[in-house]
Amino acid sequence: MSSSNDNRTDIERRKNEHIDICLREDVQSRAVRSDAHRGNSGHIDSSRSGFDSYRFRHNALPEIDFAAIDISASFLGRPLQAPLLVSSMTGGTTEANRINRRLAEAAERRGWAMALGSGRAAIERPELAESFRVRELAPTIPIVANLGAVQLNYGYGADECRRLIELTEADGLVLHLNGLQEVFQPEGDTDFSGLLRRIEKLCRELDKPIGAKEVGWGIDGENAGRLFDAGVSFVDVAGAGGTSWSQVEKFRLPPGVRREAAEALAGWGQPTPACIEEARSAVPDGCLIGSGGLASGVDAAKAIALGANLAGFGRSLLAEAVESVESIEEKLAVIEFELRAAMFGIGAGTLEQLAETNRLIRPGG
Amino acid sequence: MSSSNDNRTDIERRKNEHIDICLREDVQSRAVRSDAHRGNSGHIDSSRSGFDSYRFRHNALPEIDFAAIDISASFLGRPLQAPLLVSSMTGGTTEANRINRRLAEAAERRGWAMALGSGRAAIERPELAESFRVRELAPTIPIVANLGAVQLNYGYGADECRRLIELTEADGLVLHLNGLQEVFQPEGDTDFSGLLRRIEKLCRELDKPIGAKEVGWGIDGENAGRLFDAGVSFVDVAGAGGTSWSQVEKFRLPPGVRREAAEALAGWGQPTPACIEEARSAVPDGCLIGSGGLASGVDAAKAIALGANLAGFGRSLLAEAVESVESIEEKLAVIEFELRAAMFGIGAGTLEQLAETNRLIRPGG
Amino acid sequence: MSSSNDNRTDIERRKNEHIDICLREDVQSRAVRSDAHRGNSGHIDSSRSGFDSYRFRHNALPEIDFAAIDISASFLGRPLQAPLLVSSMTGGTTEANRINRRLAEAAERRGWAMALGSGRAAIERPELAESFRVRELAPTIPIVANLGAVQLNYGYGADECRRLIELTEADGLVLHLNGLQEVFQPEGDTDFSGLLRRIEKLCRELDKPIGAKEVGWGIDGENAGRLFDAGVSFVDVAGAGGTSWSQVEKFRLPPGVRREAAEALAGWGQPTPACIEEARSAVPDGCLIGSGGLASGVDAAKAIALGANLAGFGRSLLAEAVESVESIEEKLAVIEFELRAAMFGIGAGTLEQLAETNRLIRPGG
Amino acid sequence: MSSSNDNRTDIERRKNEHIDICLREDVQSRAVRSDAHRGNSGHIDSSRSGFDSYRFRHNALPEIDFAAIDISASFLGRPLQAPLLVSSMTGGTTEANRINRRLAEAAERRGWAMALGSGRAAIERPELAESFRVRELAPTIPIVANLGAVQLNYGYGADECRRLIELTEADGLVLHLNGLQEVFQPEGDTDFSGLLRRIEKLCRELDKPIGAKEVGWGIDGENAGRLFDAGVSFVDVAGAGGTSWSQVEKFRLPPGVRREAAEALAGWGQPTPACIEEARSAVPDGCLIGSGGLASGVDAAKAIALGANLAGFGRSLLAEAVESVESIEEKLAVIEFELRAAMFGIGAGTLEQLAETNRLIRPGG
Ligand SMILES: Cc1cc2nc3c(=O)[nH]c(=O)nc-3n(C[C@H](O)[C@H](O)[C@H](O)COP(=O)(O)O)c2cc1C
Ligand SMILES: Cc1cc2nc3c(=O)[nH]c(=O)nc-3n(C[C@H](O)[C@H](O)[C@H](O)COP(=O)(O)O)c2cc1C
Ligand SMILES: Cc1cc2nc3c(=O)[nH]c(=O)nc-3n(C[C@H](O)[C@H](O)[C@H](O)COP(=O)(O)O)c2cc1C
Ligand SMILES: Cc1cc2nc3c(=O)[nH]c(=O)nc-3n(C[C@H](O)[C@H](O)[C@H](O)COP(=O)(O)O)c2cc1C
Repeated sequence: MSSSNDNRTDIERRKNEHIDICLREDVQSRAVRSDAHRGNSGHIDSSRSGFDSYRFRHNALPEIDFAAIDISASFLGRPLQAPLLVSSMTGGTTEANRINRRLAEAAERRGWAMALGSGRAAIERPELAESFRVRELAPTIPIVANLGAVQLNYGYGADECRRLIELTEADGLVLHLNGLQEVFQPEGDTDFSGLLRRIEKLCRELDKPIGAKEVGWGIDGENAGRLFDAGVSFVDVAGAGGTSWSQVEKFRLPPGVRREAAEALAGWGQPTPACIEEARSAVPDGCLIGSGGLASGVDAAKAIALGANLAGFGRSLLAEAVESVESIEEKLAVIEFELRAAMFGIGAGTLEQLAETNRLIRPGG
Repeated sequence: MSSSNDNRTDIERRKNEHIDICLREDVQSRAVRSDAHRGNSGHIDSSRSGFDSYRFRHNALPEIDFAAIDISASFLGRPLQAPLLVSSMTGGTTEANRINRRLAEAAERRGWAMALGSGRAAIERPELAESFRVRELAPTIPIVANLGAVQLNYGYGADECRRLIELTEADGLVLHLNGLQEVFQPEGDTDFSGLLRRIEKLCRELDKPIGAKEVGWGIDGENAGRLFDAGVSFVDVAGAGGTSWSQVEKFRLPPGVRREAAEALAGWGQPTPACIEEARSAVPDGCLIGSGGLASGVDAAKAIALGANLAGFGRSLLAEAVESVESIEEKLAVIEFELRAAMFGIGAGTLEQLAETNRLIRPGG
Repeated sequence: MSSSNDNRTDIERRKNEHIDICLREDVQSRAVRSDAHRGNSGHIDSSRSGFDSYRFRHNALPEIDFAAIDISASFLGRPLQAPLLVSSMTGGTTEANRINRRLAEAAERRGWAMALGSGRAAIERPELAESFRVRELAPTIPIVANLGAVQLNYGYGADECRRLIELTEADGLVLHLNGLQEVFQPEGDTDFSGLLRRIEKLCRELDKPIGAKEVGWGIDGENAGRLFDAGVSFVDVAGAGGTSWSQVEKFRLPPGVRREAAEALAGWGQPTPACIEEARSAVPDGCLIGSGGLASGVDAAKAIALGANLAGFGRSLLAEAVESVESIEEKLAVIEFELRAAMFGIGAGTLEQLAETNRLIRPGG
Repeated sequence: MSSSNDNRTDIERRKNEHIDICLREDVQSRAVRSDAHRGNSGHIDSSRSGFDSYRFRHNALPEIDFAAIDISASFLGRPLQAPLLVSSMTGGTTEANRINRRLAEAAERRGWAMALGSGRAAIERPELAESFRVRELAPTIPIVANLGAVQLNYGYGADECRRLIELTEADGLVLHLNGLQEVFQPEGDTDFSGLLRRIEKLCRELDKPIGAKEVGWGIDGENAGRLFDAGVSFVDVAGAGGTSWSQVEKFRLPPGVRREAAEALAGWGQPTPACIEEARSAVPDGCLIGSGGLASGVDAAKAIALGANLAGFGRSLLAEAVESVESIEEKLAVIEFELRAAMFGIGAGTLEQLAETNRLIRPGG
C-alpha cells in the first residue's frame, strides 16, 4: 500500500494520513447498507459490516463450564492463545513504528498472531527497516510480513520477499491484492495482469509460507480456489463491510477526476461473511482468515462458524493502538471475552465445536 | 440472579440497581432489530420484540358476544381468571418486598398466576425470607418460587428447594437458566456443565412441580424437549425481545473487560415467538409459558396462538409495580382487555379457539 | 357508529368529536407499517396504506387517446360518471348536515355515488332525520343509507331499515360491521353473535339492495363469501391502512382501561389491497367496493385492477368537506384525473381493460 | 417536450423553467423508494435510482492492466471513445443554445455520443433553428436529433423529420414517448392512439436511423419488441429512478386539478435496470441505450452488464452544463473513470467482457 517514486517524507505523510483518516473520517464501506446513518470516527458500526445478518441460536442449556472453554489455536507452526490476528496495518514511519511496537507487545501478551503493514518501504529504504522489527517484543507469536502482490509485476521477486521475511524475522509473508486502491492512488501500480502465475512462481521459490489477502473488498470462493491452486498456504479474505480504501484515498486526493470518482465505489466489494462461506466451500481444507469489518468477538465467532480458522481485526484496533500497550491489551481481552461468551451462549467448548455448530443462522434468507 | 459471597448490603444494592436500571435505561434486547431507535425508559417497544412480525387476520363477522369471551384457565392445579402470569422479578430487600406484595395483591384480585424472584437470598439468609412471603395476600392463585438452576452445581439440592417452596408456600418451583447473565456478573456462577442431569434428579426427588425458564435469551425447541424429558412440569421460554440481561449488567459493571464486552451481546438470543413455535412443535403436550418482551394483551394472544398455555409479563409491569396496587391492577386489566379484544377481532370465544386459530399469519415469510 | 342511550347532545358531541379527531389527530392505521413517521393531520400517508406495495408497469406506447378514456360506471341501477364512491361518514347533527349536503352536491356534480353515515339517529330521533335528507341535492346519483349490522341484535329489523331507506330516499342500505369499534366505545353494542343469520333474513325481507361494509379493519375473502351467500348485493371491504377506529375512539375516551388498551390495536386489520384480492377471488361476480386508506386516483386504479368495481374514499375527503362544495368538487376532480392518468399510463381505455390489466405487479412478492 | 400554440416567449420561459426546476427542486422519481429522504438539488441520489439493488461481485484477481482497459464503442456508424451518451435535454432558447454548445464541445473532446433536445421549435420557428446547430463544435461524434413521437398524430411526417435531421446535421432521429408528461401539460398533445403504425411508416420512409425513447418512465420489454418490429434502429429505455416529469411539470403548473394530481404519479414508472433486462431479453440483438437515473460510471457499467449497448446521462450533467465546457468535460471524465474502475474491479478488460460478466448480482432476489 505504497506507491512508486516516493521519497521519505512522502511515505511518512501518506502513512500518517492513512492512520489519521481511518481514525477521524467515516471510511466504513457501504457495501452492506448504502443508507445507514454515517458515523465519523474510527469505530466500526456492526450493522454495516454484514455480520448482523447472521445470528447465533441461543442454547439455554450449554452444559459446559465457561471457565473451561478452550480457544487455543496455532498458525504458521506457532501456538496461539486465541484464534485471532492483528491485521496488517502499518510500518515505515516513526509513528508507525510506535503503533507496530504497541500492537506487537499486546499481541505477545495475549497470544494473538500479528501481521505487519506493507514492507515495501523497508526493502527500498533500508534506513526504514527498523520500524518493521518487532520480533524482540513478540518472541513467541506468529509474525507475518506483508507486500503488495502487484509489485511482482514491477520488479519484485523471490529475493526481495526473502529479504523482507529475514529483516522482520517473520514466519511467513502475505501478499495483498489491492487493485482498486492502486487505481485511486495518483501514481498507483495498476498492472494486475498475469499476477496469479507470478504468485505461483513465488510460492515455489520461497521456503516460507506465502499467503494472499485483500484489503477490504474481499476474496471470493473462485479466487480463493485459484490462489490455493497456485500454492499459497493461507488466504485472508479481507472482505467488504469494514474499511473502504477508495474512501480512505478519497480523503487524501486533491480535487480532480479520481477524487470525484471515489464516492461511486464506496459500496464496492463482497461482504466478509459471504467471502468466508464461499471460500470455505471452495477450499475445504485451506487455512482461511476471516477479516474485514469485524467489530467484536461475537463477529469473530461468526467468522469461525462460517468457516474461518482465524479471525482478523484491523481498524477496530487502531484507536487503542495510537494510545498505549495497555489499551490494546484490554481491547484484545475484550474481543476474547466476547468470543468466549458467544461460545458459551451456544454451548461450544472448543473451536472445533464452534466451527461445526448448527447454531449459526441467517434469518433473512 | 444473585451471586455468591454477597452480604446483605450487596444483595440490597444489586436488587435495587436491577430495578432502577430496568426502569431508567434502555435495556431492551436488540435481537429483533439492531437498528431501532433507542428508547430510554421502562417501556417495551413492541416493534423490537418480534411479535410485530406476526399479525392476526381480522374477522369482520366474529359471530360471538364480546361479553361472553371466556379466558379462564388453570396452572399448577389452581384456577386462573386469565391465562396470564406475573414473571419472576424480585425479592430479598425492603423495596423488593413492597413490589412483591403489590404484585401479589393485584394478581390475586385479577386472578393471574404469580412468580417470585430468585429465592436464594431467602435460603442463605433466613432473615430475608420474609420478603418472599406473599401467600397471605394471594391465597387462591398459583404462586411459583424461583431459583437459579446453576446453583445445583454449587451445593444446592432437593433440601434447599423444598425449604424455599415451603417458606414461600408456593405451588411449584421454576429454575432459571441464565448462563450469559452469570458470565457478565463479576463473580457469577458459570459452571453449567452437567446441569440437565441434576435437574432430572431434582424432578425425581421433589413432589412439587418443577419448571425451567430462561431470563430473556430464550429456550428453543431442542432444549424444551430435553427439559421435559428430564421431568419438568412446565417450561417458560423467556425469549429475546424484551429485557436484555447483558445490557442490565452492563449498567452495573465497573469499567473493564466485562463492561466493554456487554454491548456486543445486546442482540443475542432467540426471539420469543420463534421459541414458542419451536417448543410447541417439539413438545406437543407440555405446559408452555410464552414470555419475553410481551408488551400487550395482543402479544399475549399471539403467544397463545403460537402455542403457549400461559403468557408472562415481566418488565412491562415494573413501572406500575413501584407505584401502587391500583396501578398494577389497572395494568393487568388493560392487558386482559387487549387479549379479549384480539380474541373478538378474530372471532375466538375461548382459549381453545384462540390456540387453534388459523388467523395468525407472518406476512414477511 | 352510535351507541345506545344517547341523548341529542351526546350524539352531537360524539359526531363532532369524530370529525374533529379525524381532521386533527394521527388516526391512520399502523396495520401496514408500524414504524412509519407519525403525521398529525387529516391527510392519508400513502406509504402506510398498503397500496404502495403494488405498482403499475408503465406502458410507453398506450396507443389510446387520453381524452377518450371512458370511466363511466353504474351502481344500484343508476349511472355514474366515475367508478367512485363517497364513503359513509356522517349525519345527525347540524355540522354533519352541512358536510353531507356539501358532499352530496359535489358528488352529484361529478357523478359519484354517495353513502351516508349511520342513520340510527334518524330512526330513533325523527327530529334528526332532516340531516340525512340529501336527495334533493343529488337527484341522479346512487345514494346509500347506512346502519350498524349489530343493531339487528338490539331490536332492529326490516321495519327500521325500510324506514331509513325511505326517509333518505336511498337506493340501498349498507350495514357496517364494526365490532372492534363497539368494543372501544364506553357503552358499545358488542354482541355480534348470530349476526350473519339476521343479515340473511333482512336480505330476504327487504326489496332494496342490502350491502355490508367494515369501517377500516377489512372484510376478507372468507367473510365476503359468507355475506354474498347470505344475500347481500354488494360488499365494501373497508380495509385497514386508512382510518383506525380504535385510534379515533382512543382520543375520545376518558383515562382508564379502554383508553390504555386502544394503542395495542392500532396495527389491527387486514390491509385493503389484500381484502380486495381475496374477496374478488372468493366472489368472482359479486359487486365489490374497494375502500380503506385510498389517498388518490392511482390507488383507486389499483383497487379496480385488484378486483373492485367501485373505489371508495372516506377521510381523504374530510378536509375539503368541512370547507365548501367547490373544494370537494375539485378534490373529486383531482381523484378522477389521477385515475385517468394511471389508466393512460398503462394504456387502458376502459374500466374493463383496467380490471383485466396484467400491468399491476407486487414487486416485493 | 413542447406544446402547441406557443409563442417564442412561451417556449423560452418553459425551457428555462424546465432547466431551473431540474436544478433546484427535488424532481427525482419515487418509483424505487417512496420513503427516501427528499433532496432538493440537481443531484441524483443513487439509492433512489434502482441501480443500488444490483451489485458487482468483486474480483480480487482481475488479471488485467487497468491502463489497457478498452471502452471504445460506436453508434450510428461513428466511433466513440466511450459507450456513453449525453441524453436529450434542450434547445430553442438562448440559454439552451449555450448549454447545447457546451455539451457538444465536451462530448466531442471525450468522444461521447450527443443527443439534442426536442427540435419541434426548430421546425416551427426557423429563427430558433440556430440553437440546435452544434455540428461545427462536434464534427466527429454521433449527433441525434429529437422529436415527440406524438407529433406524428398532430400533422408531422417524414418531411418535418427529414428537415430536422438536415438542419441539425444529425446522424439519426430519436422519437420520445412522453404520454404522461403531455397529460400534465396544460395544452399537451395527448392523443397517443395508433402511434406505433405511424412510427413504422416513418421508419420506412426515412433513410436515416430512427430510434425511440421514453423520458423517465421507461420502455419495457414488450414495447421494445414492438418498436424494433416497427423498424426502429435503437431504443433508449429512459426508465424511472431519475427525473420524474410529472414532478417537473408540477412545479410549473398553476394551482388546480393537474397540479394537485401530479404528486400521485411521483412514483410512476418502470425502474431503469428492469427495463434494460426486459428489453434485452425481448430484443437480443437490438441496439439498446440504458438511461434514466444513472448517477455514475458504476451505474453505466451495471447498465451495460444488464444488456445496454450505450449508457445515457441526462440530469446528472445539468449542473455542470450550466457552468462551463471544462466542468462538463471533467464530469464526463469522472464517469469514464468510474466505468473503468468498475470494469477493473470485476476483471473485465473490454465492453464485451463487461456485457457477458457473471459478476453482476441482485442480492435481494
Ligand atoms: C491504517 C490501515 C493501514 C493498512 N495498511 C495495510 C497494509 O499496509 N497492507 C495490507 O495488506 N493491508 C493494510 N490494511 C488493510 C487491513 O489489513 C484490512 O484488510 C482492512 O482494513 C479491512 O479490515 P478492517 O475492516 O478490520 O479494518 C490497512 C488498514 C488500515 C486500517
Ligand atoms: C427487575 C427484574 C428482575 C428479574 N429477576 C429475575 C429473577 O430473579 N429470576 C428469574 O428467573 N428471572 C428474573 N427476571 C427475568 C424475567 O423473569 C423475564 O424472564 C425477563 O425479564 C424477560 O421478560 P420481559 O421481557 O417481560 O421482562 C427479572 C426481570 C426483571 C425485569
Ligand atoms: C368521520 C368519519 C365518520 C365515519 N362514520 C361512519 C359511519 O357512520 N358508518 C360507517 O359505516 N362508516 C363510517 N366511517 C368509516 C368510513 O366509511 C370508512 O370505511 C373508513 O373511514 C375507512 O376509509 P378511509 O380510510 O377512506 O377513511 C366513518 C369515517 C370517518 C372518517
Ligand atoms: C432539463 C431536461 C430537459 C429534457 N428535455 C428532453 C427533450 O426535449 N426530449 C427528450 O426526449 N427528453 C428530454 N429529457 C429527458 C431526458 O432525455 C431523460 O430521458 C430523462 O431525464 C431521464 O434521464 P435522467 O434521469 O438521466 O435525467 C429532458 C431531461 C431534462 C433533465
